[in-house]
Amino acid sequence: MNNLLIVGSVAFDAVETPFGKTDKIIGGAASYISLAGAFFGVTTNVVAVVGGDFPQEYLDILKSRGVNTEGIKIVKDGKSMFWSGRYNKNMNERETLVTELNVFADFDPQVPKKYQNADVLMLGNIHPDIQMKVLERLERRPKFIVMDTMNFWMDTTPTQLDKAISMVDVLTINDEEARQLSGEYSLVNAAKKIISKGLRYLIIKKGDNGALLFSNDGKMFFAPALPMNNVSDPTGAGDSFAGGFCGYITKKDKTDWETVKSAVIAGSVMGSFCCERFGSENLQLINKQMFDLRVKQFEELTSFKF
Amino acid sequence: MNNLLIVGSVAFDAVETPFGKTDKIIGGAASYISLAGAFFGVTTNVVAVVGGDFPQEYLDILKSRGVNTEGIKIVKDGKSMFWSGRYNKNMNERETLVTELNVFADFDPQVPKKYQNADVLMLGNIHPDIQMKVLERLERRPKFIVMDTMNFWMDTTPTQLDKAISMVDVLTINDEEARQLSGEYSLVNAAKKIISKGLRYLIIKKGDNGALLFSNDGKMFFAPALPMNNVSDPTGAGDSFAGGFCGYITKKDKTDWETVKSAVIAGSVMGSFCCERFGSENLQLINKQMFDLRVKQFEELTSFKF
Repeated sequence: MNNLLIVGSVAFDAVETPFGKTDKIIGGAASYISLAGAFFGVTTNVVAVVGGDFPQEYLDILKSRGVNTEGIKIVKDGKSMFWSGRYNKNMNERETLVTELNVFADFDPQVPKKYQNADVLMLGNIHPDIQMKVLERLERRPKFIVMDTMNFWMDTTPTQLDKAISMVDVLTINDEEARQLSGEYSLVNAAKKIISKGLRYLIIKKGDNGALLFSNDGKMFFAPALPMNNVSDPTGAGDSFAGGFCGYITKKDKTDWETVKSAVIAGSVMGSFCCERFGSENLQLINKQMFDLRVKQFEELTSFKF
Repeated sequence: MNNLLIVGSVAFDAVETPFGKTDKIIGGAASYISLAGAFFGVTTNVVAVVGGDFPQEYLDILKSRGVNTEGIKIVKDGKSMFWSGRYNKNMNERETLVTELNVFADFDPQVPKKYQNADVLMLGNIHPDIQMKVLERLERRPKFIVMDTMNFWMDTTPTQLDKAISMVDVLTINDEEARQLSGEYSLVNAAKKIISKGLRYLIIKKGDNGALLFSNDGKMFFAPALPMNNVSDPTGAGDSFAGGFCGYITKKDKTDWETVKSAVIAGSVMGSFCCERFGSENLQLINKQMFDLRVKQFEELTSFKF
């Protein structure tokens, strides 16, 4: 394969944590996903929308890391989506200060001709109707489709959400969302119910408690989060996880259980890097050596001989 | 080594969960620890105290699983400690209904002559002064001492607690207690501070989010909890973990990093068995075949090839 398409938000973020404060930096799910995905050296195409206020230098940052940004539509007289949040002193809770959808409110993703040959598609967290519209607009179904969503769509558009889920291969949600979507408290039972909506794999993210991967033939895998002493900013960790996951799958051109397990580790590695610096700063810096070392740390963290 | 000594409570428990309700069954930390420890075929000696109301058949249950109960003092005209609790529908919160210390209020652990040659000592969660008294009363220091404690002793007897910690090899606490004891939110930083009180290893239990093991030379290991669909009663899971940990170490007669990591897995296996039935019922039933199969499940849960 080697061709990854990402559809989602590219936006401004402003973050405040006990360790510092940023101005309007590059944010949005698709920015994190694409930076993490492009790390694997695969063709990484983004479909998104920004306003005329979005600096060329921010697009250049994405480009410099190998992300193709021609699919990011610029609405000249519009404003880019803006999110601002503040973390408490333990970084385990955050308060949203501002959410301005701006041009993202009318996001109508057009897939450019040269992006049509996607092997892996990552649908960021947007309205399930728009996620399905992307699938309609693709001339052929990508071999592997990963979809993110959130509790808001479970509350407001459950029928459309279920339909979208039935059309993709992998869903990524967090533990509380898995419980809400299934009505089951046990994550094992929740996974069974959710997978039966038509998935091959389900990933349940548990934040700094790691991530669970389930398959439609009953297999289960757990990837821990790397315990860290220097979390600067957790913003984008979940999207970096998704990007690492998709980038690894795209690179390997395989979607079997062993590959998907390793892809969850690749995602966890990207999530851990993301947290160490503000915004996507670390994703802009990491190299193969750093990545390989971190994979080793993950291996050592859980390996034992009985 | 092969000689494990356990000091702690043997008591009555009465538990109510969405799946059922028990009468007064065998409870107390030392019951769970000894049942889980004796599973490994090591000499397992218990020092505890019960009242005249404690049925001989309950002591016989411990004996039938290989636990030596001569060190359980029977105060004929006293009543056994009694704890009763109720779990909410998701089993993630519990309410204590009754705690009657009874004869346990005056627990003055005497170590019988034939228990003096302990290789591994497990000090259950009791007043740190009493934990230290046990050490004084031992003619020689066991090779490996594991100690449990709780937030109550951090609040009420912090100085004695620190002294007790400095005298043992391993401390087991949960994540909230680790944060309280260290004043650090990051568990990595918390572990560093707590280990510097004089430990070789620290185990931080995170309930159904697994357990972290730290060494005094900076190593770290993570054991997941096995995701389960049939948790009947989580009472005693932490003590079963401690018992499995100590039993495995005693059996292996080694305390190096690789052995201690595997011991954490052995503990996690015991904790998972404990939750599947009420009280210690499952610990009374499990056999080697079941244990080996479960270890394999733990191996498969986190193993990946990158």
